[in-house]
Amino acid sequence: MIPIPSDAVIVGAGPAGLFQVFQLGLQEIHAHVIDSLPHAGGQCSTLYPDKPIYDIPALPVCTGRELTTRLLAQIKPFKPTFHLDQEVIQVEKLANGHFEVTTSAGQIFLTRTLFIAGGVGSFQARELQVEGIAQFRGTQLHYGVHDTAAQQLVIVGGEAAALDFAITQCEKNVTTSITLLHRRDHFQAPPATLDRITQLRLTQRLQMVVGQITGFAQSRDRLTALRITAPQGDTQQLPLDTLHAFLGLSPKLGPIAQWGLNLDKKQVQVDTEKFQTNIPGIFAVGDINTYPGKKRLITCAFHEATLAAFACATHIHADLAAPLQYTTTSKKLQRLLGLT
Amino acid sequence: MIPIPSDAVIVGAGPAGLFQVFQLGLQEIHAHVIDSLPHAGGQCSTLYPDKPIYDIPALPVCTGRELTTRLLAQIKPFKPTFHLDQEVIQVEKLANGHFEVTTSAGQIFLTRTLFIAGGVGSFQARELQVEGIAQFRGTQLHYGVHDTAAQQLVIVGGEAAALDFAITQCEKNVTTSITLLHRRDHFQAPPATLDRITQLRLTQRLQMVVGQITGFAQSRDRLTALRITAPQGDTQQLPLDTLHAFLGLSPKLGPIAQWGLNLDKKQVQVDTEKFQTNIPGIFAVGDINTYPGKKRLITCAFHEATLAAFACATHIHADLAAPLQYTTTSKKLQRLLGLT
Repeated sequence: MIPIPSDAVIVGAGPAGLFQVFQLGLQEIHAHVIDSLPHAGGQCSTLYPDKPIYDIPALPVCTGRELTTRLLAQIKPFKPTFHLDQEVIQVEKLANGHFEVTTSAGQIFLTRTLFIAGGVGSFQARELQVEGIAQFRGTQLHYGVHDTAAQQLVIVGGEAAALDFAITQCEKNVTTSITLLHRRDHFQAPPATLDRITQLRLTQRLQMVVGQITGFAQSRDRLTALRITAPQGDTQQLPLDTLHAFLGLSPKLGPIAQWGLNLDKKQVQVDTEKFQTNIPGIFAVGDINTYPGKKRLITCAFHEATLAAFACATHIHADLAAPLQYTTTSKKLQRLLGLT
Repeated sequence: MIPIPSDAVIVGAGPAGLFQVFQLGLQEIHAHVIDSLPHAGGQCSTLYPDKPIYDIPALPVCTGRELTTRLLAQIKPFKPTFHLDQEVIQVEKLANGHFEVTTSAGQIFLTRTLFIAGGVGSFQARELQVEGIAQFRGTQLHYGVHDTAAQQLVIVGGEAAALDFAITQCEKNVTTSITLLHRRDHFQAPPATLDRITQLRLTQRLQMVVGQITGFAQSRDRLTALRITAPQGDTQQLPLDTLHAFLGLSPKLGPIAQWGLNLDKKQVQVDTEKFQTNIPGIFAVGDINTYPGKKRLITCAFHEATLAAFACATHIHADLAAPLQYTTTSKKLQRLLGLT
C-alpha cells in the first residue's frame, strides 16, 4: 500500500478521538482515524451502546450509541478518513521530525502529528480458555463474525452478537447443523432477536446446548468434537467442523507500550497545557493519558482534545500560535463547518 | 437577612456555573448560585441567546438559550438555590477557614467553598454618556425594566428589550405619552415585535424620535426635558418626567479584584489539578480563570468544573479523596440523579 502523508493521525475512534477530529477541523487540520474496531464509538459503542450516560454537559441523558452518532454528525464537515478494523503496530520517528505509523492492515502513514486517543486500549476478542484449542484459530476456530462454509457449526456465546450470527447462518440455509452453545439457558439480546431464536429452535433449524467447553477431540490436525460439561456436571461430545466464539471484547494497551512514551501505570503521561507526551508531536487525550488531577471522564477528554488541537496547530505552523476564534461569530470557522 | 450556611457558593450562573452545580451534585454537595443578572445563562443568555454555537461536544448546533435550558434541565435533580439580580460585593475568610460572602442584596453566606464562575465579569447596564444625567438615576432615570408611574415616558434603545418595554407600557394604557428614542430609524428585534411597534406608531399610541441625547433641561432637581440631536444635526426639546434606557449590558470584573486572589491581566490564576486559586477553598472556572494553555471556551469550562468538584469534595471531607464513579453504572450517582 502507498504510504499516506498527513498532518494528523488519531489512534482511536471513541468520543475523545472523534472530538479530536472536530477540534483539529476547526484548526483546518484534516485527520486520519485508526481504530481496532470495525466501527466508530470505542468503549461507548462496545461496552455500553444502549446504557444511558448522564454526565455529558448539556445532554441530560444519552446512550453510548447516541453519543457516537452525535459526534459523527458534528465532525462530518471535516471529512475525516477512517481506517477501521486495524490497529497501529509500529510508530517510528523520522529524521525530519515526522512519524511513520504502520497498522496491522499494512497501511503506512507519514504524519506530522499523532494523537493517541486509545481509551483503555484496543479491544481484542476475549479468547476461549480451553487448553490447546488455540491451534485451530484461523482455520476452524474464529472469534466474531467471519464468512463460513461450515457444515457442522457451533456458535458459542449468550449475547446479541452470537445470536445475530446464529440467525444469519440459519437464514442462509447452507450449513447442515447449527448449534448455539451457552453456559446457561438465558440470553441477553433485544426481544425481537430472542423471539427469532425461539422460532428457529422450535422448527429444529437451530439446536441449543447448555454447558461449557471442557475439552475437545481431534483427528490429526482437525478439530472434530467438543467435550461439553453441563451445569449439573454431565458431559457430552458435540461433533463439529467449525467453531465461532462470541465472548465479548476486552481492552489491551497493546503496542503503545513500545513507542518510547513515558508511562505511569499503563497511562501515557502528558502535560496539561498541550496534552503532549514526552515526544513532541505526539499527543494523548482521553482515558489513556494521565496528569495531576486526571479523571477518566468523557467531559475531560473533550477539553484535552481541544487544547491538543491548538497545540497541534502551533506545532505544524512552526510555533505560530493559533488564535482563539468562536464558532458563534467567526466567519472563517463557519465556512470550515460548511455553514456559509 | 439570616446568614445562609452552605458547603458551596457559586458566583455566576452561566454555563460554567451551571455545570459546576451538576458536578458538585454528583459529589453530594448542594450549591447556592449568585448572579448579577435576573436569570440564569450568563453571556449565553445575554450576549448571544439566539445565535448558534457549533462547538459544544455532541451538540452539532445549539443556541445560547438552548444551552442554558439544557443545563438547567440537567442540574434539576440537584435543586440548586439561585440568588439572582445581585452580585457578590465582599468575601472574607473566617477564622474557621470558611468564607463570609455578602451580596448587593444584603444576603450573607457562610460557606466552606467558593466557586468563581464569573465569566467576563458581572453584567452591568451600559450607561448614558450624557454629562450630569446620572443625578437622576433611581428617581427619573432607570436602566432596564422597572415599574413606572410615568405620564411622559421616554424609552431609549433600539433592541428587543427597549421595544418590549415600550409595547408593555403602551398596552397598560396608563401613561399619557410614550416616546421611543433611538439613534436611527432601524430596530433589531423579532418580526412580531417590529410589527407591533409599527401598529402602535400608526395608531399614534407610540411616538418615535430619531436622534441622540445631547443635553437636558431641569427645574430645581427635576429632569424636565431632553435635548435631542437628529442625525442631520437639528436639535429639539423632548419633555418628559421619566426616562428608561436600554443600552445593553457590559461586563465588569467588579469587586472580585479586591478578594486577595492572584490575578493575571484581570484573570484569576488557578492550578490545572483542582482549578483552585491561591486561596484554598476558592476555585475559579470558565472564562474568568487563567493557566498555561487556557482557552476561553465553554468545553474547557466543563472540564474545569468537573475537576474542581472533585477537589471540593476532597477539601470538604478532610482530604479524603473522592472516588471516581460513572453515571452509567453507579447506583449511588443514579440515586442522586433521581433515577432510582
